[in-house]
Amino acid sequence: MAEEKVMNKQVLFKDYVTGFPKEEDMVLTSSTIDLKLPQGSTAVLVKNLYLSCDPYMRPRMSRPLTQSYTDALVPGKVLVGYGVSKVVDSGHPDFKAGELVWGITGWEEYSLITMPQQLNKIKYTDVPLSYYTGILGMPGLTAYVGFYDICSPKKGETVYVSAASGAVGQLVGQFAKLAGCYVVGSAGSQEKIDLLKNKFGFDDAFNYKEEQDLTAALKRCFPTGIDIYFENVGGAMLDAVLLNMREQGRIAVCGMISQYNINPKDPVHNLFCLISKRILMQGFIEPDHKHKYPQFHEQVIQYIREGKVTYVEDVAEGLENAPSALIGLFSGKNIGKQVVLLAHE
Amino acid sequence: MAEEKVMNKQVLFKDYVTGFPKEEDMVLTSSTIDLKLPQGSTAVLVKNLYLSCDPYMRPRMSRPLTQSYTDALVPGKVLVGYGVSKVVDSGHPDFKAGELVWGITGWEEYSLITMPQQLNKIKYTDVPLSYYTGILGMPGLTAYVGFYDICSPKKGETVYVSAASGAVGQLVGQFAKLAGCYVVGSAGSQEKIDLLKNKFGFDDAFNYKEEQDLTAALKRCFPTGIDIYFENVGGAMLDAVLLNMREQGRIAVCGMISQYNINPKDPVHNLFCLISKRILMQGFIEPDHKHKYPQFHEQVIQYIREGKVTYVEDVAEGLENAPSALIGLFSGKNIGKQVVLLAHE
Repeated sequence: MAEEKVMNKQVLFKDYVTGFPKEEDMVLTSSTIDLKLPQGSTAVLVKNLYLSCDPYMRPRMSRPLTQSYTDALVPGKVLVGYGVSKVVDSGHPDFKAGELVWGITGWEEYSLITMPQQLNKIKYTDVPLSYYTGILGMPGLTAYVGFYDICSPKKGETVYVSAASGAVGQLVGQFAKLAGCYVVGSAGSQEKIDLLKNKFGFDDAFNYKEEQDLTAALKRCFPTGIDIYFENVGGAMLDAVLLNMREQGRIAVCGMISQYNINPKDPVHNLFCLISKRILMQGFIEPDHKHKYPQFHEQVIQYIREGKVTYVEDVAEGLENAPSALIGLFSGKNIGKQVVLLAHE
Repeated sequence: MAEEKVMNKQVLFKDYVTGFPKEEDMVLTSSTIDLKLPQGSTAVLVKNLYLSCDPYMRPRMSRPLTQSYTDALVPGKVLVGYGVSKVVDSGHPDFKAGELVWGITGWEEYSLITMPQQLNKIKYTDVPLSYYTGILGMPGLTAYVGFYDICSPKKGETVYVSAASGAVGQLVGQFAKLAGCYVVGSAGSQEKIDLLKNKFGFDDAFNYKEEQDLTAALKRCFPTGIDIYFENVGGAMLDAVLLNMREQGRIAVCGMISQYNINPKDPVHNLFCLISKRILMQGFIEPDHKHKYPQFHEQVIQYIREGKVTYVEDVAEGLENAPSALIGLFSGKNIGKQVVLLAHE
């Protein structure tokens, strides 16, 4: 049987992380891989084009006893995450060589996917392929389900989005504007604030790092209170939001990036507001809602084509720069959705 | 016009309270009242038979800036709360002398009700009248809405109730058993634990005051986790519950009695569990659900008549003992629903 062995650069997960992840927690290495599947294999071999850097990856790096919404990563093994790939060889009837796919893959040049149900075919190719790590992928569906299904927005309601220029936040803000809501976002730099106001059409935005008093900042932005909060950060921000929520408010609990690298977690003191204001808080994750991808894609591709939503990405180039790109999420280095380009189609 | 002036003993609310309420925060006094309404009045004059002591009254005693789900009490004025009364005179077409009513009244022997929409006629009289302060009143509807509507129980699910022998908790536990759930309650004394297991049919119960580690106690009682938590206490208990919740769990946030008398409030650290376990938390209060009283009464009166639910009250006698009865709620002195008997029908 003909072998086609090539070098395969990889990023390994070194060991469980405590505190902020560092580049040294990931190891760049290389092995060889056969680009021809053995006879009888039902796996799919892919060439990775884009890798996605997402905040949820941090909880997966903690020792499993820490609650995490996905299985923990395995020390010594290649890092895994969402990506866009091209099929090189396939033993699975659903996929064939040359097809473009997105889904869970490895942080490496080539990946052998033994559970092809984690791959999805790419249907729309008139948008950048990298969008399948963002607006058309997990962050997109997260924004869609969290905003429309959990927050049940009504025209004229007030919406607050934290981490608003990130992969999910920028979409939530635009969905909220399309729904006729008043939308304010927060982020951690002037550049991001400008992006929110000028590119994504938020009605207002503030730099949380420059506010002495988050409760007062929210009171200033929402004099009559917040109907909907899209929670991406947790901790002190959540506490300030609770004091500023309106009665019958809804909080979609999507992420708590401010809390992933610290232990003990920041205290939240104002949960009594849940009763006094009859607030709903609902945690959710994308894997529970995968069946909504078809309707979501149909809706969002339309928005993109009509120019009703836009999407900003921060693209790092090369696998060797993937670890620092991932780590950058936790200091807010990225402007927009962080993605890593490995290879053009 | 004939006057029928009588003495009217009253409990006044002295001034806003910080920390635990004391008897001295309430003043026993008396005034005179005319038992005949003046010509043309549209008010209703009632003789109070039972007064209800409920935890929600504590937030009403704080200076209004503190979030409270009802209006604050007015210093110097008579205390108000739920009660059962008999109409003495009425200028309102919906009520006539001799009728029994329940609703918001004053902590006094006779009350002049100027907003008769706060009164409800008593329909079923084959149960103790005091039940309209409890199982057939605000706590009853609270248990009913919180458990059935917010927690959406399914047969075989696990249910945890804190403050389980209280007015609301004892009903939630019994509703949960009727729904085919496995139910564990916690309370603060052996006598209450016995009540939960032997009278209300809880599958298990524990004394939270005797547990070193609430997280471990819940793990022991729920080895596979909690599907439904009926939240009455807040603080450290909520934190321990979050770690023990199962995926897709529901938390009906009814009260946080452990937090009403302290400032700052106890920290909650484990809200990330909302995401990892996709938990719903929903705050609620009875006034939003008053339209459900007819269906609720029909259901619960049936349960009472068939002996399917039971109700335990702690009855203090005399208006002069009302302040200490109310305060006793916050140290758990009451066994079952705390009510004050002022007069027999």
